[in-house]
Amino acid sequence: MANALRVLAMDAVQQANSGHPGAPMGMAETAVALWSRHLRHDPADPHWPGRDRFVLSNGHASMLLYALLHLTGYSLPMSELRQFRQLHSCTPGHPERGHTPGVETTTGPLGQGLANAVGMALAEKLLADEFNRPGHTVVDHRTYVCVGDGCLMEGISHEVCSLAAAWRLHKLVVLYDDNGISIDGPVGPWFPDDTPARFRAYGWHVVGPLDGHDVEAVDAALVAAHACDDRPTLIVCRTQIGRGSPQRAGTAKAHGEALGAAEVQHTREALDWSHPPFEIPAPVYTAWNARARGAELRRGWQGRMAAYRQQHPRLAAELERRLRGELPADFQESRLSLLAQFGQAREAVATRKASQQALAALAPRLPELLGGSADLTGSNLTDFPGCGAVRGDTPGGRHVHYGVREFGMAAIMNGVALHGGYIPYGGTFLTFSDYSRNALRMAALMQCRVVHVYTHDSIGLGEDGPTHQPVEHAASLRLIPNLDVWRPCDAAETAAAWISALTQRSRPTALLLSRQSLTAQLRTAEQVVAIARGAYVLSDRARPQAVLLATGSEVSLAVEAQAVLDARGVRVRVVSLPSTTVFDRQDRGYRDDVLLPALPRIGVEAGVTRWWSQYGCAAALGLDGYGASAPAAQLWPHFGFTVERLVDLVLAQLGTLETELPRPC
Amino acid sequence: MANALRVLAMDAVQQANSGHPGAPMGMAETAVALWSRHLRHDPADPHWPGRDRFVLSNGHASMLLYALLHLTGYSLPMSELRQFRQLHSCTPGHPERGHTPGVETTTGPLGQGLANAVGMALAEKLLADEFNRPGHTVVDHRTYVCVGDGCLMEGISHEVCSLAAAWRLHKLVVLYDDNGISIDGPVGPWFPDDTPARFRAYGWHVVGPLDGHDVEAVDAALVAAHACDDRPTLIVCRTQIGRGSPQRAGTAKAHGEALGAAEVQHTREALDWSHPPFEIPAPVYTAWNARARGAELRRGWQGRMAAYRQQHPRLAAELERRLRGELPADFQESRLSLLAQFGQAREAVATRKASQQALAALAPRLPELLGGSADLTGSNLTDFPGCGAVRGDTPGGRHVHYGVREFGMAAIMNGVALHGGYIPYGGTFLTFSDYSRNALRMAALMQCRVVHVYTHDSIGLGEDGPTHQPVEHAASLRLIPNLDVWRPCDAAETAAAWISALTQRSRPTALLLSRQSLTAQLRTAEQVVAIARGAYVLSDRARPQAVLLATGSEVSLAVEAQAVLDARGVRVRVVSLPSTTVFDRQDRGYRDDVLLPALPRIGVEAGVTRWWSQYGCAAALGLDGYGASAPAAQLWPHFGFTVERLVDLVLAQLGTLETELPRPC
Repeated sequence: MANALRVLAMDAVQQANSGHPGAPMGMAETAVALWSRHLRHDPADPHWPGRDRFVLSNGHASMLLYALLHLTGYSLPMSELRQFRQLHSCTPGHPERGHTPGVETTTGPLGQGLANAVGMALAEKLLADEFNRPGHTVVDHRTYVCVGDGCLMEGISHEVCSLAAAWRLHKLVVLYDDNGISIDGPVGPWFPDDTPARFRAYGWHVVGPLDGHDVEAVDAALVAAHACDDRPTLIVCRTQIGRGSPQRAGTAKAHGEALGAAEVQHTREALDWSHPPFEIPAPVYTAWNARARGAELRRGWQGRMAAYRQQHPRLAAELERRLRGELPADFQESRLSLLAQFGQAREAVATRKASQQALAALAPRLPELLGGSADLTGSNLTDFPGCGAVRGDTPGGRHVHYGVREFGMAAIMNGVALHGGYIPYGGTFLTFSDYSRNALRMAALMQCRVVHVYTHDSIGLGEDGPTHQPVEHAASLRLIPNLDVWRPCDAAETAAAWISALTQRSRPTALLLSRQSLTAQLRTAEQVVAIARGAYVLSDRARPQAVLLATGSEVSLAVEAQAVLDARGVRVRVVSLPSTTVFDRQDRGYRDDVLLPALPRIGVEAGVTRWWSQYGCAAALGLDGYGASAPAAQLWPHFGFTVERLVDLVLAQLGTLETELPRPC
Repeated sequence: MANALRVLAMDAVQQANSGHPGAPMGMAETAVALWSRHLRHDPADPHWPGRDRFVLSNGHASMLLYALLHLTGYSLPMSELRQFRQLHSCTPGHPERGHTPGVETTTGPLGQGLANAVGMALAEKLLADEFNRPGHTVVDHRTYVCVGDGCLMEGISHEVCSLAAAWRLHKLVVLYDDNGISIDGPVGPWFPDDTPARFRAYGWHVVGPLDGHDVEAVDAALVAAHACDDRPTLIVCRTQIGRGSPQRAGTAKAHGEALGAAEVQHTREALDWSHPPFEIPAPVYTAWNARARGAELRRGWQGRMAAYRQQHPRLAAELERRLRGELPADFQESRLSLLAQFGQAREAVATRKASQQALAALAPRLPELLGGSADLTGSNLTDFPGCGAVRGDTPGGRHVHYGVREFGMAAIMNGVALHGGYIPYGGTFLTFSDYSRNALRMAALMQCRVVHVYTHDSIGLGEDGPTHQPVEHAASLRLIPNLDVWRPCDAAETAAAWISALTQRSRPTALLLSRQSLTAQLRTAEQVVAIARGAYVLSDRARPQAVLLATGSEVSLAVEAQAVLDARGVRVRVVSLPSTTVFDRQDRGYRDDVLLPALPRIGVEAGVTRWWSQYGCAAALGLDGYGASAPAAQLWPHFGFTVERLVDLVLAQLGTLETELPRPC
C-alpha cells in the first residue's frame, strides 16, 4: 500500500517533469497508518460534516494526497493523476480547495495549513460545546495535519501551536515528517531546534521521535494521540525523504524535481514494483478502498443526527443551517433594522465604535459570529455585550483572544471558515495587516467568508507614529483579487459594510476603521440603500463642475470643501466610496452616473495618491510618505489635510487658481 | 536611579496624555543593571562603531529609552522629554532611528526589534571574523535587546531565535520583561508557553526566571550571559508592569494609557519621590551620567583601531570604508564593466540567472555583499562562486541559509544594514514577499539599504500554481513609500537594477525576477545608460500613433506586437519600465518625453491591470484574478498574453477595431 503511493507520486512527477516526489515517498507509511486505520472519511461524500479533517500543510507533497484520494475511492480517476500539474486537471501543483474532492484547504505557503488545521479543530471544539447534548454527540471529529520541516521553521507555527495548547485542542493531531532535509540541504545548520522539547514547552503531548516507516509505530502513536484528552498531539515521524529511490533518498535532490527516467526505473526495481506507471493492481485498490467503511461511518453519523433531530429539532435545524453557511431566515429583518437605526445616527462616532455597535446589534441574532482580536480587544472593539471569552478550560465563549499573533489569527480564521459553523472575524491595527497579508490572500483565493476588522486606519490614530500609521495599506489591500475592502465614513456606512461582509459568502472582507470620531453624514433613505453599491453620490449640486471623491475619515473634509466652494460659486458633487472593490463590480452605467467621467475629478484619502488615477482623478489629496508621531489634530494640517487645500485643489483643476499642486504622475 | 526612570516615564505619558507607562516602570531595575553596569556606549558619540547595541523591541516602552538617553548624557534635553509624542519633538511615540540620538532601530511592530538585534549580532560576528587579527580585536561588542510578551508571541521571534542559536551568537543577550500582562489582560489564557524551555529547545543559554526588580540579580545574570561563549542568552526577568503605581501596577490598565493625575500623585508618594515633573536631582544625574566612562571606552577602542591601522593599514581602511557604508573606490569601474558586459548580452536568460551572473561579477569587488535565501538558494540563485555558507561553527562565509523564514530573514537583513559593514540581500519567491511585508516597510521607513531578490515573479513560474504565482505583488510593493521596485526584462536591465540597488544608500530595493528565460533586447549604448532612469524608449517608430508600456517578461510581447503592427501599417513606440519607482523620481520633461501624454497608451504586465491608469493607460493587458497550475507555455495564452491580443488592444484604442476589451475601470 505504501509503495503504491510512492510509485504514483514518482510517476506523476516524472510525467509532468515537475513536482515534488520526495515528501510523498517519505511519508508513505505515515499515510498508510493514518488513512487506512484511523481517518474517518467517506470518499463518496467529501462534504459530510462528521468527517475527520485532513490537512497537508506541506502542500508541495500534493501527489501524496491525490494518490490517497484516488486509491481510497474519491471521484478522482487515474486520468487526473496522469494529468498532474496540467491545465484544467483536478490535480494542480499544490492542493486547491474547491478544485479537487477531498481537499479541505489550499496549501503551499508553508505553515498556513497547520494554522488552518488549528482553526478547524477550534471550530469543531466550539461547535461541539454549543450543540452536543447528553446522549447526543453529533459534533465529534478529529483534525489531522501533516507538516514538514518548512512548516515548523515558519513563525506562524509558533503562533498557532501555542494557541492550540492554550485552547486544549486534543482532537488535533500533527504528524511531523521529520526528514531532516529542506531545499537547501540537511537542515542542521539552520534548524537547530529540539522540536519535541519546543512543543512540550507549549504544553503539547509529544509522541516520538519514532520510525516513520514503521506503520505499526505510527499506528500506535495515533492510538496514543487519541487517548490524550487535554492537549493536542505532535507525532514526530523520523523519515527519509524520497524513500525508495536508490540514488535520491535522503537528499535535497529528492525534494522538488522529477527523479528522471533512469532513477524511476531503479526505484521500481528497488521497490520490487513491476506494474507500469498509473496501473495499480486490484488487491492494492481493494486494500485501500475506503468506500464501505466510509459509508458506514457516515450512516452512523446520520443516525446520530436523526436521533438528535428528533430530540432537539430546533438545535438540529440550527446546526444544519450553520453548517450550510446560510444566514438566519430573519437576517433580512436584522439587516433592515440595522440600516434603519444606523442610517439615522447623528452623533459623531469613531467607525471602530460604530462597528462594535453593529456587532452588538447583530450578534444576538447571528450566533455564528466568532470574534477575536490579536491582543487589541479594547482598541479594535471586536467584543460585544455578553460575548464571553473562548478558553481552553471552559466551554462557550464567542470572542477569541489570539494574543499578539496577527498572521496566526488570520490563518486560523480561514480554518474556522473552511470547517464551517462559524463566521470568524478578527481585529488588529490596519498597519499590521502586513503581518497577515498572505493569509488574506489565501482567504481570497479559497473564497472564505472571514472578516478582518482593521482599526486605526490612518494618521488619525495620532501619537503612535509612522510604524502604526497606515499609508499604503488601503490601496494595497484593494489590489488583492476577491478581497472586499471597506473604509466607511460614519456609522451608516459601517453598518452597510458589516452587512456586505456577512452576505458575501465567497469572499473575505477587510473593514478599515477609524480610531477617531467622525461626523455623521446626512442621507436620504435611498442614499442609505446606495451605500451597498460601494460608492454613491453623497451630496450633489445642480450642474456640478467637478467631482470630489472621498473615503472614510476624509469624506467630511470633502463635504466641508463643498460648502466653501458653494460660497465661492463653484458647484461640486461629493461622492463617497466606502468600498471601491464593491463599486468596481457595479455596471458601467451606474459607475458613470456616479463618477461623471466628463468632469474633473479630485480624490481625497489619507493614503497614497497615485491610486486615485484609476477613477480618473487628475489630482488627489493624500499622503505619499510616512506619517509622524503627534496628536492627530496637529497631524491633519501638518500633512495638508485641510479644507482650504482641498478647495484650492478643486479650483486649480477648474483652472481658476494657478498653483503648483500635488498630483499623481 | 530606577525611580527616576519610572517618574520620567509616568510624567511624560501623563503630560502627553498618551503613551505606555507600564513597561518602562516595570523594566526600571533591569535598565539600571544593564545601562549603569554593563552597556558600553558613549553618549557623546552615538555612532561610535565599537559601541554595544541596545534595542528596545517592545518599542511602546519608548519613554524608558528616552529617559535612559537623557540621564546618561545623550543630546536629548529635558525639553524633549516634556515634548513626548509631540510634533517635531525628538521623542516620538515609538523609537525612530535617525530621529533621536542613541536609537539604533525603529521599533513598535512587535518582534521585529528582536530580529533586528539578531541581524546586528550576526553582522558583528561576521565582521569580527573578517577583520580581527591576532592581538587586534577591533570588532568586539555586544547586542542587548529588551523584549516583552508580545515580541515572544509573534511568530518572527521563533524564526530569528532559532537562527541566533544556529549561528551561535553568544554576544546577543535578550532581556525578557516577563510581566505576565498583555493588552487583553493576564496572558495565561493565550500564552501558555514555558518560554525558558522553548528557548532551551532552540539551544539558548537561559538565565532565570529571576526577580527583575532586583538589580543585583539582573547584574549577576548579565555576568553569566557574558561568560557564555557559544550560545545567545535569554534572561527571564519576572517583573510587575507599572511597578510603583499603587492602583495600576500588575494590571493591563498600566500598559497603554496615562495613569491620571491622581494616580501619578499616589505613585510619587509610594515611591517617596518628592521632585516635580521633569526635575531630576543632581545626585541622580551624576549616578546615571555615562559620559566619562563612555569617553574612556571609546578612546580605548580608538587606541585599538590606531594600533590596528598601523599594523594592518589596508584592512583598517577597508573596515572603515565598510562601516561608513561607502562603496569601493573602483565601484564606478565595476559598474561600467558590468553594464558593458550585460548590455551586450544576446542569449535568452532568466532574469534570476542574470541576477546570479551579476552577483558573480560584482561580489569579488564588493566584499560587503552578504547574500542569503529563505531555503530557496537553488531557485533564487542568490549564491555566487566561492561565496561560502555562513555557519555557527566556522568563521567566514558570505551566504546565509535563513531556512524557511521569510519575515525573519527580512528583519534580520534590516538589522545587518543598521549595524553596518555589510549590504545584505536575500531571496525568496515573490509571492512570499507577503510574509515579510512589514519588514520591507520598516526598511523603507528606516532608509536601510537592503536588497530583496524575489524570483518566480509571475504565472511564468508555471506548475506550482496560484499559491505561488504573484498577481498583485508588483503593484502592491510599488505602493510602499521609499521602496524601489525593479522588474527587469533581460540581463542588461537586471545589471542596471543591481547597480541601482547598491547605490541607493537610503532605501531598500526589491528585484522582481523571472523563473523563465527572457529574450535579450537590443539597445544602443545610450539606451543601456537610460535604463537607470527607470523607464525609457526601448523601440521607437517615426511619428508613433500609440505607446506600449511593458515591464519584465512582458517587454518581449510588446516588441513582438510592435513588429506585427508595423506590418499592418500602425506605428507604436515601446517603452520598457523596469522601475516605475525610479522613473517617478525623474523630472517631468523626461517623463513626458518617454510617455508621450498626447498619445493613447496601453500597458502590459502579468499582474493586476488597474495599476496602469496612473501612466495614462486607457487599456492594459494583465491578470486581475488568480493564476493556475500548468506549464507556463500553456498559461500565457490561457490568460490572454498573446501578441494577437495585445495587437487587438492597440488597434481598439486607435479606433480601428471594434471589440469588447479589458480595461481599467
